[in-house]
Amino acid sequence: MSAESADRLARAALSAISEPGDPRLAVLADEMGATVLYRQLLEESNVAGLHTDLAARLAAADPERVLTDAARQGVRFVTPSDTEWPTRLDDLTSVAPIQERGGPPIGLWVRGPLRLDRLDTAVAVVGSRSATTYGADVAAEIAAVVGRTDRCIVSGAAFGIDQAAHRGAIAADGPTVAVLACGADRVYPTAHRQLLDHIAAEGAVVSETAPGGAPTRIRFLSRNRLIAALTVGTVVVEAAVRSGALNTANWASRLNRVLLGVPGPVTSASSQGVHQLIRTGAATLVTSGAEVLEAVGAAGEHLLEVPRGRELPRDRLTPRQRQVLDAVPVAHGARADSIARAAGLGLVEVGSALVKLEERGLVELDEAGWRLAARAHT
Amino acid sequence: MSAESADRLARAALSAISEPGDPRLAVLADEMGATVLYRQLLEESNVAGLHTDLAARLAAADPERVLTDAARQGVRFVTPSDTEWPTRLDDLTSVAPIQERGGPPIGLWVRGPLRLDRLDTAVAVVGSRSATTYGADVAAEIAAVVGRTDRCIVSGAAFGIDQAAHRGAIAADGPTVAVLACGADRVYPTAHRQLLDHIAAEGAVVSETAPGGAPTRIRFLSRNRLIAALTVGTVVVEAAVRSGALNTANWASRLNRVLLGVPGPVTSASSQGVHQLIRTGAATLVTSGAEVLEAVGAAGEHLLEVPRGRELPRDRLTPRQRQVLDAVPVAHGARADSIARAAGLGLVEVGSALVKLEERGLVELDEAGWRLAARAHT
Repeated sequence: MSAESADRLARAALSAISEPGDPRLAVLADEMGATVLYRQLLEESNVAGLHTDLAARLAAADPERVLTDAARQGVRFVTPSDTEWPTRLDDLTSVAPIQERGGPPIGLWVRGPLRLDRLDTAVAVVGSRSATTYGADVAAEIAAVVGRTDRCIVSGAAFGIDQAAHRGAIAADGPTVAVLACGADRVYPTAHRQLLDHIAAEGAVVSETAPGGAPTRIRFLSRNRLIAALTVGTVVVEAAVRSGALNTANWASRLNRVLLGVPGPVTSASSQGVHQLIRTGAATLVTSGAEVLEAVGAAGEHLLEVPRGRELPRDRLTPRQRQVLDAVPVAHGARADSIARAAGLGLVEVGSALVKLEERGLVELDEAGWRLAARAHT
Repeated sequence: MSAESADRLARAALSAISEPGDPRLAVLADEMGATVLYRQLLEESNVAGLHTDLAARLAAADPERVLTDAARQGVRFVTPSDTEWPTRLDDLTSVAPIQERGGPPIGLWVRGPLRLDRLDTAVAVVGSRSATTYGADVAAEIAAVVGRTDRCIVSGAAFGIDQAAHRGAIAADGPTVAVLACGADRVYPTAHRQLLDHIAAEGAVVSETAPGGAPTRIRFLSRNRLIAALTVGTVVVEAAVRSGALNTANWASRLNRVLLGVPGPVTSASSQGVHQLIRTGAATLVTSGAEVLEAVGAAGEHLLEVPRGRELPRDRLTPRQRQVLDAVPVAHGARADSIARAAGLGLVEVGSALVKLEERGLVELDEAGWRLAARAHT
């Protein structure tokens, strides 16, 4: 057996018997190599404090069969020795655990044709399960705009913002990847069977949990770190104060990923968590897909024009005309000499400017003199 | 005549014949003293490049009469030698003009009983004339919360956010000051006669423009700098991309005042300007009056608890119980031994934890085993 396939089998076995995001396992696999760790665990009952019954479970695990069964479900196992391995995950090695989860995954279980190295420029769009229609609309729109540039949209296939993000990407014919807390062969939430099947047909359904694994809170937390680690940046669209999306945001910050937040009404509980992220400076405020692209793009790739508003009539005036216009009263007319004094200009030049301004419909005469026309108010 | 009353008369004359926010006049009055500047302008036709016809107009002005007429309208003239002079305005001396307006005012015309030194801790709440009901509600709420601490709410008495801010302060019995672009004796917009009369009766209506002066664009721009300069911080509630409120925000930044912005839906044009301020880091995002108080308060005066959301059932568990709970599947039940493996714990302690968790309604049994109860999902 080649060293490479020994490594793959060792990782499949370790993945099948361990919980995703176990930082001790990740560190040991990294230090010793998966093959050595696997063998030592099989031989000894306690390696570096790993729980004793791991060995017993490992002995019972049959990695070849795990891989064959997975393949029958259309699930492949991707490990660091595969060319499609997303190298961004290596950043997890140097980041301390959050809530006892951390480290790079032992391997990833993948259902779908999309190669994971396509995630190189991917953007995560995440948020509340209990999203408002406002939040869902904005998430879909952002995912569509980003997806149109062929950047992959990564999310968690949950209700609310996640679903909207995947659907937005799909609507724009953009690639999309769902990272699940349960096995990649399973459907959670079950209402999203069609969505997940579509993603598996066109993009990829990814999980660190071995096929057949059920979703648990541990696995959701581990999954969130993968969403942050796999992508260039995370956009949080709506998140209440205790939303799981804030866990993803926390990971994105720790991993030095771009963290972006979409604001909403301050009266909406669904935006409270995002507002906190922006307020504390953890996230940058974004209002559109274009701004997301600017934030995650390579320097200069997606530079935005700062919105300047539509051109106003006064923009086309000469500086002198503008000076006169600025001195014309808003409500009740004033005589030209009074306007000349206010503008600090001579009566003759004010008189000729007023005529030009009247031609453009910016000033008008009433009984008392010149005043601004309605057009000039804006 | 005392030097003090000579200074007052000189300033009244200069105020009556000049445009508010003329930076040349402010610099000269500062350097030479108002009395000397006044005399020199009366004698010479051109002082340091000031426009020649200033002298002629100054000769025609009768400052004693201007002051008497103002007093008859209930308007007093406040100058730097008055004890109520708001010393924050001195900061304008060192800040470069924006759109040709700048410098401290020559004096302020005031209608209403509130002493201007009460503005020492004041907060400005400004925004779009074309506010949404969302924006108006939030402005009123913030003004009420801040007003309740006896901090003065300063705004411009315009339609929309300004009006809502004044009304919010009034509803909370808080002091409020309107800074106008026209004379303090005038009412602009005319629809706000009642509001302005109320403010003049309880707080103060303030203007740099001498009584009788009409509102012009120059005077609106000058007025905005006063709103920023008079206050500790400015809250921008809604502002489209070209809103005048952004001019006030610009002044607040230049004057090192606290600049705060209230976000809104990204789909609302009325919030676009505010989002830009927050996005670029010019303004800090705030969502409530309490956050405004925290931002403008002296250190430690109004420290807020970071919102943590309501306490959840899992918050009260022991770490061990939580570890077990985190390993219980979300959807379909699992047997205790499988949960024990996932949690990395012994079967006995998992069994006893599951019983406790069931008592608290956090887990339940189905045909396949233990799963999370609905209560534990949140």
